Amino acid sequence: LQQSLNSPEVASVLDARLSLLPSSQRNAFCVPSNKALPQTDTSLQASPDADCVYLVGNSLGLQPRRTRELISEELDNWANLGVNGHFCGKRPWLPIDENVISKSAAVVGALPSEVAVMNSLTVNLHLLLVSFYRPQGKRNRIMYEAAAFGSDFFAFESQARVHGLDPKEVLLPLKPREGEETLRTEDVVAAIEAAGDTLCTLCFGTIQYYTGQLFDVAPITAAAQKVGGKALWDCAHAAGNIDLKLHDWGVDGACWCSYKYLNSGPGGIGGFFVHERHHGKDLPLLAGWWGQKQASRFDMGHEWQPEADASAWRLSNPPVLQTVALMASLEVFARTSMSELRGRSMLLTAYLELLVLELAGEGGLSVITPSDPKSRGCQLSLKFPSERLCLETFEGLERRGVVVDHRKPNVIRVAPAPLYNNFSDVQRFAKALAESMQEAKGEPAAKKAKS
Amino acid sequence: LQQSLNSPEVASVLDARLSLLPSSQRNAFCVPSNKALPQTDTSLQASPDADCVYLVGNSLGLQPRRTRELISEELDNWANLGVNGHFCGKRPWLPIDENVISKSAAVVGALPSEVAVMNSLTVNLHLLLVSFYRPQGKRNRIMYEAAAFGSDFFAFESQARVHGLDPKEVLLPLKPREGEETLRTEDVVAAIEAAGDTLCTLCFGTIQYYTGQLFDVAPITAAAQKVGGKALWDCAHAAGNIDLKLHDWGVDGACWCSYKYLNSGPGGIGGFFVHERHHGKDLPLLAGWWGQKQASRFDMGHEWQPEADASAWRLSNPPVLQTVALMASLEVFARTSMSELRGRSMLLTAYLELLVLELAGEGGLSVITPSDPKSRGCQLSLKFPSERLCLETFEGLERRGVVVDHRKPNVIRVAPAPLYNNFSDVQRFAKALAESMQEAKGEPAAKKAKS
Ligand SMILES: Cc1ncc(COP(=O)(O)O)c(C=O)c1O
Ligand SMILES: Cc1ncc(COP(=O)(O)O)c(C=O)c1O
Repeated sequence: LQQSLNSPEVASVLDARLSLLPSSQRNAFCVPSNKALPQTDTSLQASPDADCVYLVGNSLGLQPRRTRELISEELDNWANLGVNGHFCGKRPWLPIDENVISKSAAVVGALPSEVAVMNSLTVNLHLLLVSFYRPQGKRNRIMYEAAAFGSDFFAFESQARVHGLDPKEVLLPLKPREGEETLRTEDVVAAIEAAGDTLCTLCFGTIQYYTGQLFDVAPITAAAQKVGGKALWDCAHAAGNIDLKLHDWGVDGACWCSYKYLNSGPGGIGGFFVHERHHGKDLPLLAGWWGQKQASRFDMGHEWQPEADASAWRLSNPPVLQTVALMASLEVFARTSMSELRGRSMLLTAYLELLVLELAGEGGLSVITPSDPKSRGCQLSLKFPSERLCLETFEGLERRGVVVDHRKPNVIRVAPAPLYNNFSDVQRFAKALAESMQEAKGEPAAKKAKS
Repeated sequence: LQQSLNSPEVASVLDARLSLLPSSQRNAFCVPSNKALPQTDTSLQASPDADCVYLVGNSLGLQPRRTRELISEELDNWANLGVNGHFCGKRPWLPIDENVISKSAAVVGALPSEVAVMNSLTVNLHLLLVSFYRPQGKRNRIMYEAAAFGSDFFAFESQARVHGLDPKEVLLPLKPREGEETLRTEDVVAAIEAAGDTLCTLCFGTIQYYTGQLFDVAPITAAAQKVGGKALWDCAHAAGNIDLKLHDWGVDGACWCSYKYLNSGPGGIGGFFVHERHHGKDLPLLAGWWGQKQASRFDMGHEWQPEADASAWRLSNPPVLQTVALMASLEVFARTSMSELRGRSMLLTAYLELLVLELAGEGGLSVITPSDPKSRGCQLSLKFPSERLCLETFEGLERRGVVVDHRKPNVIRVAPAPLYNNFSDVQRFAKALAESMQEAKGEPAAKKAKS
């Protein structure tokens, strides 16, 4: 049976059955063809014009078909209306972010009032830290996971420095147990309790970018708050991937990027969340005119009267092209729901896991992502026994029109994006993986001839 | 003679003579037509299809003809290459800001190493303040002009608060002398000397957004530095307008937006300058992975090894659409030079002044912008005797296809942009101004019939 699961026929039956779900939105996206990709060896491809196998929405999501149209409309408005576009046209620019607030909120499980769409991820992380990392006396520590994404770490470290604190003394990294790949919730909670009233702020990636582990946001947040700390979450790999419930989980603040699972294009606009309970409390923040109440924003007075919700954190007038690029994708999300998507995504990733595990035995390949679907999103991280085997397998996949990503030293991340990937993508990936590993293990001569 | 200067014939002779200068680049831009503007009354227009009179580049610059093409190319790359666009294509995305650094530097008079293109203006102002507003003991004051743009003021105030300081105690606003509209350099320098070792940071708008005054950047900067302070300049209204010399003037840090005279579109990307003398000094800053040396940026290590120049302040991966939108405009700037542009711009604004002053006597209209061309950029700010007259004149201008902007209570800002405006624009403006003022002063019944 397992053998037959890994066949184009089974995959296409699954796709046919499930393609009617609203969570299956492949047609709304531009999928690169095999031949358009720079590394594809078309002699290894059934069809150069067919869709490539794009499993790297964890890095850059595909382009919605509607993006070009929305951008073109705004270019028309700019050309025809000039500065009047701020007030006129289908989507006046001054409040253009209103077109993406509710839909963003729906994607991350927030109230619209809790969300701002602005800046970029690392900028937003800093803005959150300014408000939620307020070291005082011994309550000055930032807890994070030791393998945090570099940019997040640099944010923590530089914030400590800006406060005149020694990063070595205030940064508190958590590591998995010896011999384990991922952190256990019980250990995180124990570390929080041990930190006690020295914990100022906890900040984790909701889904760890390298291992694919999805943390237990609610209990970790609750534990941090219980000792008097604040809990921030970097949702870069979670927004548009899993059914986040930022509001219900009681998260203090969160940020995300939109160029991964939210398909807003390279360097797309960032997302920002501040829980309702912090609104109107005059928290310290870095202020700008776009956080000023709309009624008085353009009076140019010098009396700070902030908006009553997360909008108070906005700084600048909104970037129009970036905003409508996100809008194009959020319109696709609005046809389904994150819980719907999550359901189909769990099946897709389970299918991927099944097919990968078939190969895992022989090659020394392992999956470091948790096997419990509730502890992961769509991504699986495959660990290879050697860097060489990893890299050569990766190149073999590329030659076969499979786009995944390689993370040093020996991990390949494979992410069937909930919105647009299908079972056939996964099956084609598994086939190409088997071939590529075979090739990587094969004789150098044979490999040379191929490449 | 003056009467004949204010005629279409004279204006078109001037245009014909000067249109061969490289500083005259009107054809590179999309100028809205009279009829495309929402408020135009085409019955008052000679030709509905003719270009409107667009004199509001101080608010939103016009769209370069090439913008659409460059954006389309990047949308193609995204659609066809997916994540591979980071490394492949005509302009790989990871270093895409390299396409705009040198040209931006040329525009603001900086070394390329002193410039980063990123974020938005108010965000960049905060990043500068984090590095250059480091209050210690009694050296804790921020000096600014009392009528600073709201967003800048909110930045100063909130930075003081974040440092736990009372804004009332540390903010030091400077006002013009009683009865004067603009600040005198001697008074600014005297105030700096009076502040002495309490001055931590001075931050001015290089060109005051309301009055159009261009400050004496070099002597003010030198004075601030002489008492041990730092000098920051918000170049929102100066970049692409005057021939800035940020490097030579010894400015510590500067920021600007690109949607005004730099024509990058609504909410376009921001500019950022840190003087060479501060590079590699490990100044406190808010760090992100894009400030990490490129060689180790993608290793995901946690050792902060910043880039050796202004790039160290970058936080996030670059926004591609925003970056190429700016590039389209900078390519036009690269056909000329800021000193060339400034030369023609001085003539244009002098012509504007001449024609406006003809009308000034009768209507109680005055120009609050300094009359010395070295103390202003292209913009003139016209002050009306009453808010009503100002607003009604503004509406009359709008009906005649003239786009300028109104600033409460009684100022109309008129900005012949150096790159694309011409003498005919100015002449048509003056004619429409005369008509609109006449109309505004006329009987209510007559006005009603028109509007
Ligand atoms: C002088 C000045 N400073 C700051 C700003 C705020 O710019 P942004 O919304 O891009 O942050 C503006 C906007 O017009 C401005 O004119
Ligand atoms: C987990 C995580 N945090 C932060 C970042 C940095 O994002 P940006 O460059 O948009 O600031 C990334 C980028 O991939 C990421 O994956």
